[in-house]
Amino acid sequence: MQTLRINSSRLQKDFDELAQIGTTGDGGVNRPTFSESHLAARAWFRARTLADGLEFRQDAAGNHSAILRTPQPDAKTLLLGSHLDSVPNGGRFDGALGVLAALEVLRTVKEAGLDLPVHLEAIDFTDEEGTLIGLMGSQALIGKLSPAELAKPRGGRAPFEEGLTRAGLDEAVIPTAARSRESLVAFLEIHIEQGPRLQTSKCDIGIVTNIVGINANKLTFTGRADHAGTTPMDARRDAGLGAATLMLRAREEVMRDFQNCVINFGQISFSPGAYNIVPERAELAMEYRAPSQLELEMLKSRLIDIAQQTAQQLNLKLESEESGCVRATPCSLKVQDAFTAACNTLNLRATRLTSGAGHDTMSLAQICPAGMIFIPSTGGSHNPGEFARWEDCVNGANVLLQAALELAK
Amino acid sequence: MQTLRINSSRLQKDFDELAQIGTTGDGGVNRPTFSESHLAARAWFRARTLADGLEFRQDAAGNHSAILRTPQPDAKTLLLGSHLDSVPNGGRFDGALGVLAALEVLRTVKEAGLDLPVHLEAIDFTDEEGTLIGLMGSQALIGKLSPAELAKPRGGRAPFEEGLTRAGLDEAVIPTAARSRESLVAFLEIHIEQGPRLQTSKCDIGIVTNIVGINANKLTFTGRADHAGTTPMDARRDAGLGAATLMLRAREEVMRDFQNCVINFGQISFSPGAYNIVPERAELAMEYRAPSQLELEMLKSRLIDIAQQTAQQLNLKLESEESGCVRATPCSLKVQDAFTAACNTLNLRATRLTSGAGHDTMSLAQICPAGMIFIPSTGGSHNPGEFARWEDCVNGANVLLQAALELAK
Repeated sequence: MQTLRINSSRLQKDFDELAQIGTTGDGGVNRPTFSESHLAARAWFRARTLADGLEFRQDAAGNHSAILRTPQPDAKTLLLGSHLDSVPNGGRFDGALGVLAALEVLRTVKEAGLDLPVHLEAIDFTDEEGTLIGLMGSQALIGKLSPAELAKPRGGRAPFEEGLTRAGLDEAVIPTAARSRESLVAFLEIHIEQGPRLQTSKCDIGIVTNIVGINANKLTFTGRADHAGTTPMDARRDAGLGAATLMLRAREEVMRDFQNCVINFGQISFSPGAYNIVPERAELAMEYRAPSQLELEMLKSRLIDIAQQTAQQLNLKLESEESGCVRATPCSLKVQDAFTAACNTLNLRATRLTSGAGHDTMSLAQICPAGMIFIPSTGGSHNPGEFARWEDCVNGANVLLQAALELAK
Repeated sequence: MQTLRINSSRLQKDFDELAQIGTTGDGGVNRPTFSESHLAARAWFRARTLADGLEFRQDAAGNHSAILRTPQPDAKTLLLGSHLDSVPNGGRFDGALGVLAALEVLRTVKEAGLDLPVHLEAIDFTDEEGTLIGLMGSQALIGKLSPAELAKPRGGRAPFEEGLTRAGLDEAVIPTAARSRESLVAFLEIHIEQGPRLQTSKCDIGIVTNIVGINANKLTFTGRADHAGTTPMDARRDAGLGAATLMLRAREEVMRDFQNCVINFGQISFSPGAYNIVPERAELAMEYRAPSQLELEMLKSRLIDIAQQTAQQLNLKLESEESGCVRATPCSLKVQDAFTAACNTLNLRATRLTSGAGHDTMSLAQICPAGMIFIPSTGGSHNPGEFARWEDCVNGANVLLQAALELAK
């Protein structure tokens, strides 16, 4: 029997159309969660779903789905997907490829007239990238997004509320998007690697064994606002100096003692914020990642030590607020094996690796067998220059299809 | 003959009234240039001037003056004053004391019926603190504020234009505020020290010998926006790391090799500005000061070297834009001697010292004999906690009066 394949040209047409929505003009897209361009991309997905004769569904967390129903009674759902939101000025592959490949799998199965014993659902999760909360849609779907967490979104309350209003969502009912463990067969995601390992090792497909844990903190150093001309250098309580010192020390320690981990300082501000005033307050966004929960906890402890020592040495006050925290997650062995079998069927070279980025798979792995594959990508990530060869995108979509057919049995 | 003295209680009543305009509630004032509170303070000054029977004048740069005219033909002007604007959330003494003491000198002379051979003018200079440009009013008055400089205000074009509109000023005619060297006898300013030296040396009055030179730059490091989880630490081009490294290196070098100088980094921003994106751009406001022009030039050269080395080592691009530059300025010996004589007349302990802060005296010294005195202050500066004892304020105003009478001869 011939191996079923997705329709490459149909998928590419969709991909190119979607990449125009919120385009940055240089190959990227700017679709932060619930921005006008993000909502336009979601409207496009809805229209495409209906035009393809699939069922469309939106849940209380704003997750959008295309569904191919089985007529069999009491059937479970095999979930495939990713996200259509982007970081500010991000790339056109990140997330979008996973949603479109999932949609293409549904169309291919429908077109082939296959009679599967499960519902197939291609889902676009809300706010994977964390403009507002991070993994918001998938965390809501697994029932882990509590009203208390919603109360302190990492992007701030005002942008969160404004975004919900634009999207027509009601904060109070978001938790009702939760689904039961029993309703799901598995979750599969395809994504670009966003790193150099597949290219370096000349592999077509990366099968993810585990996903890094992520902690994010907002750190605030407080000193004293002083005249920048009349206050002797050694008499200052310069909050900005605290932030700069922490940035360098933390980086050095991570690179020396935590070589499997990474750290980033992506936002900073000083106040009052004038050329001639020594900064009284410095706010710093810190995010760090580790491949296992044990390493994440050890790194957390070290970073808190460094920040507190820095504050003490410079006579500053330090406040730290957690603004997001995702546990390190192993992927399902059953799903990994289904991906491996699919690669063998398709004669693709596969390897197993760790994901340095967080993905919605992290959420789903908590309630059902979940796993993901990477395809090779270049040009870094979270920027307009990220790139994947179309041949690799098609390979990934075909692996997704084969693994889905295997797991649907 | 009895020594003439200012009216302490009248001055104090004015001081307390003015401190309520834009009050921060904790002893400070928030009166950035052309803010509503700043304009309210200026309206108060205008009303006070007219109520005192003095002439009111506003020039094309928005400088406000109270004038006590002499009937003598072809008389020159003896200028006294300071500024009513503050840094964001600044103190109530900085600038305001100098304007009110000058106004009180005019009232005292008027009340005493003295017939001086010069016009006495108490001036409130526009934007001394540099919310918009820095020393804007005094630079315009000495004819050094060119249209080219106005085109690039350090606070940005939009706030500058909005401020001018609120104040009812016309950018095109600001340079017409320039006055001739021949029209001015001298300029005198009284100000709080904003530092610890008078208190430490148990002096009542500091007579300023020279004022530091100030350079301000906006530095921009540019690297690459990357995914903060998938990009190895040593493969990043992290613009934020460039900014933090420069901040620490520059501070170390200044404290080691330029002990008479100071440096401050008062503003910073990273873009795109997300927890999970390595910063592509880091903008940093750098300001540094030196007591002489020679030291200022040497420091400038060293800082540029450090910044360029930092950029090169981290594979970043560096851009530097000058956003303000004031030459180190010696004060007039004639004015210093008049202040010394006044202190002796009043039995006050005086010392001569360098000013670490820039003042409008720096501008005026370029076209006429100019000088200033400090009174002791505590609680730092440019913050609501700055404080001067009322007795010291009164001493300063009396020294200003005596020196003015001496120079008016």
